[in-house]
Amino acid sequence: MVNFEFLCPTKIVFGKGTEKKTGELTKQYSDKVLLHYGGSSIKKFGIYDKVVKSLHEAGIDFVELGGVVPNPRLSLVREGIQICREQNIKFILVIGGGSVIDSAKSISIGVPYKGDVWDFYTDKATAKEAIGIGVVLTIPGAGSEASDGSVITNEEIHYKRSANSFFNIPKFAIMNPEFTVTVPKYLTACGAADIMSHVFERYFTQVQNVDFTDRLCEAVMKTIIVNLPIVLREPNNYDARAEIMWANTVAHNELLTTGRIGDWGSHMIEHEVSAIYDVAHGAGLTVVFPAWMKYVYKHDINRFVQFAIRVWNVDLSFGSLDAIALEGIRRMEKFFKDCELPVRLGEMNVPNKNLEKMAEKAVEFGEIGNFVKLGESDVLNILKLAL
Amino acid sequence: MVNFEFLCPTKIVFGKGTEKKTGELTKQYSDKVLLHYGGSSIKKFGIYDKVVKSLHEAGIDFVELGGVVPNPRLSLVREGIQICREQNIKFILVIGGGSVIDSAKSISIGVPYKGDVWDFYTDKATAKEAIGIGVVLTIPGAGSEASDGSVITNEEIHYKRSANSFFNIPKFAIMNPEFTVTVPKYLTACGAADIMSHVFERYFTQVQNVDFTDRLCEAVMKTIIVNLPIVLREPNNYDARAEIMWANTVAHNELLTTGRIGDWGSHMIEHEVSAIYDVAHGAGLTVVFPAWMKYVYKHDINRFVQFAIRVWNVDLSFGSLDAIALEGIRRMEKFFKDCELPVRLGEMNVPNKNLEKMAEKAVEFGEIGNFVKLGESDVLNILKLAL
Repeated sequence: MVNFEFLCPTKIVFGKGTEKKTGELTKQYSDKVLLHYGGSSIKKFGIYDKVVKSLHEAGIDFVELGGVVPNPRLSLVREGIQICREQNIKFILVIGGGSVIDSAKSISIGVPYKGDVWDFYTDKATAKEAIGIGVVLTIPGAGSEASDGSVITNEEIHYKRSANSFFNIPKFAIMNPEFTVTVPKYLTACGAADIMSHVFERYFTQVQNVDFTDRLCEAVMKTIIVNLPIVLREPNNYDARAEIMWANTVAHNELLTTGRIGDWGSHMIEHEVSAIYDVAHGAGLTVVFPAWMKYVYKHDINRFVQFAIRVWNVDLSFGSLDAIALEGIRRMEKFFKDCELPVRLGEMNVPNKNLEKMAEKAVEFGEIGNFVKLGESDVLNILKLAL
Repeated sequence: MVNFEFLCPTKIVFGKGTEKKTGELTKQYSDKVLLHYGGSSIKKFGIYDKVVKSLHEAGIDFVELGGVVPNPRLSLVREGIQICREQNIKFILVIGGGSVIDSAKSISIGVPYKGDVWDFYTDKATAKEAIGIGVVLTIPGAGSEASDGSVITNEEIHYKRSANSFFNIPKFAIMNPEFTVTVPKYLTACGAADIMSHVFERYFTQVQNVDFTDRLCEAVMKTIIVNLPIVLREPNNYDARAEIMWANTVAHNELLTTGRIGDWGSHMIEHEVSAIYDVAHGAGLTVVFPAWMKYVYKHDINRFVQFAIRVWNVDLSFGSLDAIALEGIRRMEKFFKDCELPVRLGEMNVPNKNLEKMAEKAVEFGEIGNFVKLGESDVLNILKLAL
C-alpha cells in the first residue's frame, strides 16, 4: 500500500423524492444559479419540472444553459463561463449525468480564471479556485458527481482531454434512482460499462498489498455484474437501479484509489477514439479494455488470475495461470456482449483507419498508463487488438 | 434500499511518516490545542515525541491531558472541559485510539454546552456545536477517527452510554500503520473484533435489496479474517497492519450504513457487560455476538446463510439452511478463538450473576436492536446463551 490522502467532500442525498431538497441544499450556497443541463429528456420525463419547483419554493433565481451533448464541448463551456461572469453567478446547478457535470466543472474553474479554460486541459494551468456546483444526477456511470475530474472535447481540433481539481468537486449530489428508469437500454449499459472501467483502472495496479481496496473494487464489479442484466430486462426495477447508482459514485470518488496507483491508459486511448468518432464513452471502453488486458496481462499474471477467479468465478481447475487469466477476460467480453455493448472497434462502426493518428495523439504528452507504461507502438498494438 | 444522506468530512492522511503533517494540519484550525492521550505507551514508543516535534515546528502551543483509560471516564471528560474553558482552547489533538478519541469528542461537545455533558448520553440534550478535533491514530478498532459517535462510562453509577453528533466528527485523522506495530497481541485482536462487530451491526439488517453495501461489508470482514492472523503471527508486518487500519475506518465512517438500517443491539448489551466488569470492548463483543446470532438468525435465515457462504466459505452442500447458518456462526467463533479472543462470558471472568441487572439496564430506554427488537427477557436469554 502506498501513502494516501482521502477526503470526498460531496454530500450525497440518495433515494426517492430527494429532488425536493434541491432548493434547500442550493440555498446554502447561492440565491442565483446557472441551471445547466443536456437535451429534452429531463423535460419529457418531468425531472426538470420537479427540480425547478424546488428551486422556486426556495426562492432561487436561475439562468438556464441547456444543450450539453455527450462528449461535452468546449464551445458550450465558454458560453457558460461568459454567462456566469456577465450575470455574476457563483453557483451551478446541474441536472444530468457525467457530460453535464463535466461541462459544469469546466465552467466552474473557468469563471475565476483569467486565461483560456482550455489551458487546464493542456497542462498549461492548474485551477486554484472555482465556483460551486450542485448536482441532480439523472444518469449514473461517469461518477463525476463526487469526483475531481472533468473531460471536455475541443471540437474544433478533435481533442478530448481531462483536467482534475479538488476545487470543482460538487458540494452535493441528489440521487433519486427513479430518475434513471427512463435512461434507454444502451445508455444504461454504457453507464455501467463506465463504472466497470473506473474500477478496472484502479484494480490493475502494480502496487502490492492492497487487499482491502481490491475487495472494495470487487464489490463494485460484482454489483454491476448482478444488477446490470436486471435493469436491462426490467428497466423499472428501482432496487437494481439504486444499486448501480450508488456503486457508480463509490467507483469514482477516489475511495478505491486509496493506497493504490491507478492505470488510466485505457481511458486515454478511448479518449482518442471518441474524440474522432464521437462514440459513447462507455462503449469505447468496452472495446479498449479487452484489448488492453490481453496486451498487458502477463505483466502481473497473479492479478489477472485474481480478477478471473474472484470477479468472473473462473475455476482454478481451468488450467494454467494463463488459461485462467484469459478465461476471465473472455467472460468479461461475454458479459459486455450479453449486455449488447461492443467489444470491437468495428461494432461501433469505427473503421480500420486513423489508428496511427490515435496512437500518436494518445502519447502526445509522453507514455501513458501505470500498470504498464505504454508508448505509441503499444497503443497502436492495442488498437489493432481491438479491431 | 432506504433513502440516506452520506458525508464523511474527515480528511484521512494515511501512511508512513504522515505524523510529520500533524502541525501543519492542526495549524489550519488553531494555534493552541488540548493534547489528549492515554497511558505511557505513546511516550515509550516515541510516538508522543514525533507528534510534539511536529507541533513545535508549526508553532502550536498545547496543554496536556493524559490518562484516558479503556472505557473512558466521565470524570476525565469533565476535567478536559474545564481546562478548555479556562484556557480558551478551541481544538483538541488526540494521540491514541477509540477511547481517547471518544473522550475528546465528549469534551468537544461539552465545552460550548451550558449544562452537564452527561445530558448528551442520557437523551436529555443534543449537541448543536463543538470545538474541533484532530487525531493521530495509534490503535485501530473503534473507527472513532471518522465516526460521529462517542461512548463514555459514568464510573460513579456504572453506566456506559453513547452520544452521536455530526459536530464532533474529527477534522482529520493521521494514520501511520507503523504506530500500530507495538499494540500488544490481545489489544490488536480486540481492535479487529471491534471492526468486525461494526460491520455485523450494519450487515444484519431487515432492509432488503442492499447488494452493494452487503459486498462492501464483506470486503471489510474478509480483510480482517485474512490480515488479523498475519499480524498476530508477525506484529511488525506493515502491510497487514495497514490493511486493518484502513478497513477499520471504512467499517465505521457510515459508508457501510448507506441505504441500510443497522442493528446495534449487541453493542448495547456489551456496554452493560463492560460497564460493570470493565472488559475490553472488542472482547465483550466476541462474547455477545455469537449468542445474539444464535438467538436471532431464524428471523432472516437467508441473510445468515449469505454470511456463512460468502464470509466463512461454508459450502452449500453443508445441508439445510439452518445447518449452513449455524456453521457460519461456528466458524466465526472458531476464528475468534484462534485469535485468542473470548467467546463466552466465563472466559472473560464475568461471573454468572448480574445478568438480570444488565438486561434491565440494557432496555432502560425501551427495546433495543433493529434486526429484531429485543426486550428485557430477550437480552437475558442472549446473555445466558453467552455463558
